[in-house]
Amino acid sequence: MAEVIRITDPADERLADFRDLTTADRRPDRPGGKGLVIAEGVVVVRRLLASPYPVRSLLGVERRIAELDAEVDGSIPAYVTSADVMAEVVGFHLNRGVLAVADRAAPWGLEDLARAKRLVVLEGVGDHENLGALFRNVAALGWGGVVLGPGCSDPLYRRSVRVSMGHVLAVPFTNVTEWPGALEFLRSKGFQVLALTPRADSLPLDEVDAGGPVAVLLGSEGPGLTGVAIDAADHAVRIPMSGGVDSLNVATAGAVAFYALGPG
Amino acid sequence: MAEVIRITDPADERLADFRDLTTADRRPDRPGGKGLVIAEGVVVVRRLLASPYPVRSLLGVERRIAELDAEVDGSIPAYVTSADVMAEVVGFHLNRGVLAVADRAAPWGLEDLARAKRLVVLEGVGDHENLGALFRNVAALGWGGVVLGPGCSDPLYRRSVRVSMGHVLAVPFTNVTEWPGALEFLRSKGFQVLALTPRADSLPLDEVDAGGPVAVLLGSEGPGLTGVAIDAADHAVRIPMSGGVDSLNVATAGAVAFYALGPG
Repeated sequence: MAEVIRITDPADERLADFRDLTTADRRPDRPGGKGLVIAEGVVVVRRLLASPYPVRSLLGVERRIAELDAEVDGSIPAYVTSADVMAEVVGFHLNRGVLAVADRAAPWGLEDLARAKRLVVLEGVGDHENLGALFRNVAALGWGGVVLGPGCSDPLYRRSVRVSMGHVLAVPFTNVTEWPGALEFLRSKGFQVLALTPRADSLPLDEVDAGGPVAVLLGSEGPGLTGVAIDAADHAVRIPMSGGVDSLNVATAGAVAFYALGPG
Repeated sequence: MAEVIRITDPADERLADFRDLTTADRRPDRPGGKGLVIAEGVVVVRRLLASPYPVRSLLGVERRIAELDAEVDGSIPAYVTSADVMAEVVGFHLNRGVLAVADRAAPWGLEDLARAKRLVVLEGVGDHENLGALFRNVAALGWGGVVLGPGCSDPLYRRSVRVSMGHVLAVPFTNVTEWPGALEFLRSKGFQVLALTPRADSLPLDEVDAGGPVAVLLGSEGPGLTGVAIDAADHAVRIPMSGGVDSLNVATAGAVAFYALGPG
């Protein structure tokens, strides 16, 4: 049961974590060096409560807090207020009626992720919505984790969390700076590294032998993977496309590849 | 070569088609009974020029109009102006620098679409972004057309056109009102109708025999397909999902199904 606290004053200092959420990446002073993790809506707050991220507090209208009450540890304050006060604190109108904030958790290492049989490695995926959608697809199709290479955004940014439907909170991920060293490391751990690219000379996805551990490398929409990354992979692979259509959205291409290669 | 016409006055009457584009579904007086078809950016305008939709005019900054010049028929006016005048006419700032408008074309009929080997049938897909993404995936993966059942939005709405990257302009589609009569019609034409649903008792996608013509039925995110639609299908099929993740985004689920069943 949550510790329910009623608040009527939008200036109440206990709501500091929720203030002005339109500002990107708030509270970089918190552990992890980046902003707090923010969940919006009952479904995503529920996933945050079940995640390894330490929840600091909830803010919501009466009805939404009541829906979540049984899942909230008694040590976590749940601030109940009106939709208008919420909008004033947050800086925009929330139609989902509840928010929760959490601290970052200790990051996973590449060694931890390399215990999975199926990994996604991203290069240059800077769009928060694509990143969120990718994590949702990773979770849905049973893949093991995400390695974020150069040029990727923060998957715990508010918009990514929302687009992922909160599934980013359940998927292990790590940032790597050694590039393409991280790919070489995965190969040394027995991974077959597959670079997904629409290039015509690459291997169709259904011809891949995906028996062992597989890491699929995805690049940003538009420029795609760098030559450095493709060269460091075992194979370049492609989704067979219809004439004239250059490529799918990166998260969609990922989903097709995760399905085609299976959860391992 | 386009008929290039320079305009400096944002109130110029020749720009009427481009005025205040933030208003949804403009000019329902035009053929087809709905708004004009609007393309944004060089890539999408190019696809509009190659589509069956009769282009009325282009509006853009000098550089963008020059990029498209060779592809524009001389009878089509191309209005060149500044980015500021464009923003004033359109009602928002366009970072892609060029727009084109077209009339609607004569609609396809269900009989026309039934000549394809692979069709998508949508029920209740009201979100313009999901609809646009679905059309992009249909085009990329070589499927033949889209049947829009009850509760679907207009795929030629500006936002759908943009999210589809203009591919909606190349994919035949039709609206049907007979429901589930349209599914019965497709079955009478030899289609195997497959209802994609996360229900556990449905057939995994990789166990489907997709040798003949196939129509895949997709429902809206959230409520999913109605019982009426599922009952009218030959089989309920599912993408195997990881525990706890209820479903993929509808456009993503579609892409996985289109890939798994193949272009026919």
